Amino acid sequence: MRLAIVGTGLIGGSIGLAARARLGATVLGVDPDPEPALAAGAIDAAVGLDEALAGAEVAFVAVPVTALQETVAAALAAAPADCAVTDVGSVKRALVEATSDERFVGGHPLAGSEAAGAAHARADLFEGATWYLTPGPTTSGLRLQALRELTAALGARPAIIEAASHDRMMAAVSHLPHVLANVLVAGAEAASGGEGLPPAGPSFRDATRVAGAHPELWAQIYAANRDALIEAIDGARAALGEVRERLLAGEDLRGWQAASARPPLRGVADETELLVVVPNRPGVVAEVALTMARAHINIGDMSLAPSADMATGALTLSIPAEHAPRAVALLAELGLRAR
Amino acid sequence: MRLAIVGTGLIGGSIGLAARARLGATVLGVDPDPEPALAAGAIDAAVGLDEALAGAEVAFVAVPVTALQETVAAALAAAPADCAVTDVGSVKRALVEATSDERFVGGHPLAGSEAAGAAHARADLFEGATWYLTPGPTTSGLRLQALRELTAALGARPAIIEAASHDRMMAAVSHLPHVLANVLVAGAEAASGGEGLPPAGPSFRDATRVAGAHPELWAQIYAANRDALIEAIDGARAALGEVRERLLAGEDLRGWQAASARPPLRGVADETELLVVVPNRPGVVAEVALTMARAHINIGDMSLAPSADMATGALTLSIPAEHAPRAVALLAELGLRAR
Repeated sequence: MRLAIVGTGLIGGSIGLAARARLGATVLGVDPDPEPALAAGAIDAAVGLDEALAGAEVAFVAVPVTALQETVAAALAAAPADCAVTDVGSVKRALVEATSDERFVGGHPLAGSEAAGAAHARADLFEGATWYLTPGPTTSGLRLQALRELTAALGARPAIIEAASHDRMMAAVSHLPHVLANVLVAGAEAASGGEGLPPAGPSFRDATRVAGAHPELWAQIYAANRDALIEAIDGARAALGEVRERLLAGEDLRGWQAASARPPLRGVADETELLVVVPNRPGVVAEVALTMARAHINIGDMSLAPSADMATGALTLSIPAEHAPRAVALLAELGLRAR
Repeated sequence: MRLAIVGTGLIGGSIGLAARARLGATVLGVDPDPEPALAAGAIDAAVGLDEALAGAEVAFVAVPVTALQETVAAALAAAPADCAVTDVGSVKRALVEATSDERFVGGHPLAGSEAAGAAHARADLFEGATWYLTPGPTTSGLRLQALRELTAALGARPAIIEAASHDRMMAAVSHLPHVLANVLVAGAEAASGGEGLPPAGPSFRDATRVAGAHPELWAQIYAANRDALIEAIDGARAALGEVRERLLAGEDLRGWQAASARPPLRGVADETELLVVVPNRPGVVAEVALTMARAHINIGDMSLAPSADMATGALTLSIPAEHAPRAVALLAELGLRAR
């Protein structure tokens, strides 16, 4: 297998290490400074973009958020007709909307930090990590399937989701916590009269661990996910306003406090397989996957086998058994029959 | 030395263990269920309130926030004329305002959780922990001094501060982080469509570790510190509103992110000693200590030696050397001369 990695920092370098170690892949890297990745053994060779993409089966674009759109477009221009191109950026909607090429699938592994460089790359960085894949309406089912398989082979758990839902979730579980950490530090400094921080216990230390982290990177992430982050901020302000009014009214907040415990992580469910015959038209597999994602039906595994004449394909989906009737009904709404 | 502990849970029990182990104190405990404290060796005997207080040099009231005011009043009614009475509640202003007895000093050790019971008590619970003391305007200097010495002897770092400042600081570094943890969990559940939490990285896990903690206890703390918590919530809402407007305007948030890093913890400074002759009138030592606290001059050590006729006392303060000129000027404003 032959991979291209454009941007060989921590994430790109770790993809290279994992692909070489686990899959015996040949990995060509593109980077203005490829030395750390070469020294780490993350790439077989450092070459130019055209040379890296020629003959690549999959290309990972792992550059900073601000350069993503331009670099993905350049990679698609250089990539062969059957090459899947993906990225690893932490914000997805704008990029997916701007990229209608059927070979492109947005991607985002929940691992590491984009800031640390190939010297910290690890072959096991993605072990057990969620790797979001955000196909657009025109994404090819075969390319999506190739990326599902490849990210799983790198040790990750691929999860297909709409780009806009991804961005809202990341605003809620990552970008807003970073904003609130900054707000908490400023509030504590103000409360202590502006002379450093008052003594504080573990709840404050935990909640502010990421305050002020990587200013360059995080300013880019806030800006890239502006709409979803504003929505999350507005949600937090409304929730705080509600608590404030309940405090002011002297209400007992015991029920609210009790209802606020973190729910347990999602468990692993019994799975069943659905076989769906799909027409070989652009976007149909992505449409199926996104329909399941919208209905919160997790696809544990997925495989696509095209028919000999490429007119149709057999799509196999593993989903929680309890959701099978609902999934069959949703597929019927798309004009697809499932077995 | 003879101590009374009213409420022998985790904090009360740990005070008993530390006082017996470090100071060889005789500790009498008062609790509706004193068995765990007796089993842990935290008290010498379990007795009634009057018996515990008779002959006590210091009494610690370590009952839940809602019962504090009543129990402190009962302890003061039973305590000898030269007994210092303090509490360990995490909110101070209302209690200090309601308790004008010169023997009372508000207290709050930043250690442990009030929820866990004497079975988890430890003699080293206060080792290196900040122990706030919040005297009121009528608090006796000798009682304040006795509590400073005793809490230091238990391993803690006593810090004298105004009750209202204490409550604002605790709202900022403890109560608001707990509220925000709840708000973050609710936002993440909403963003994932209400089906449990989405996969999340360490920033979310850290920021929500205390979500929904001890509903009974935290509802009481929120209510007890209502005014300061509302102020902190309003500060957070305003700060979020500002970030929102800057995002909407497309501003670069790099500078804000960079300025939001947690400042380093306060270092230990070179200290110098000031000797102050103070008139023996109620509240003068507390007034001196609170004046220093307001000016952010940390008192590293303090001792008070009354003159033979009790008309005046010699107060020795250890403070950072760099702040000595400012401290002398502040003392002069109080009509006190320092050497």
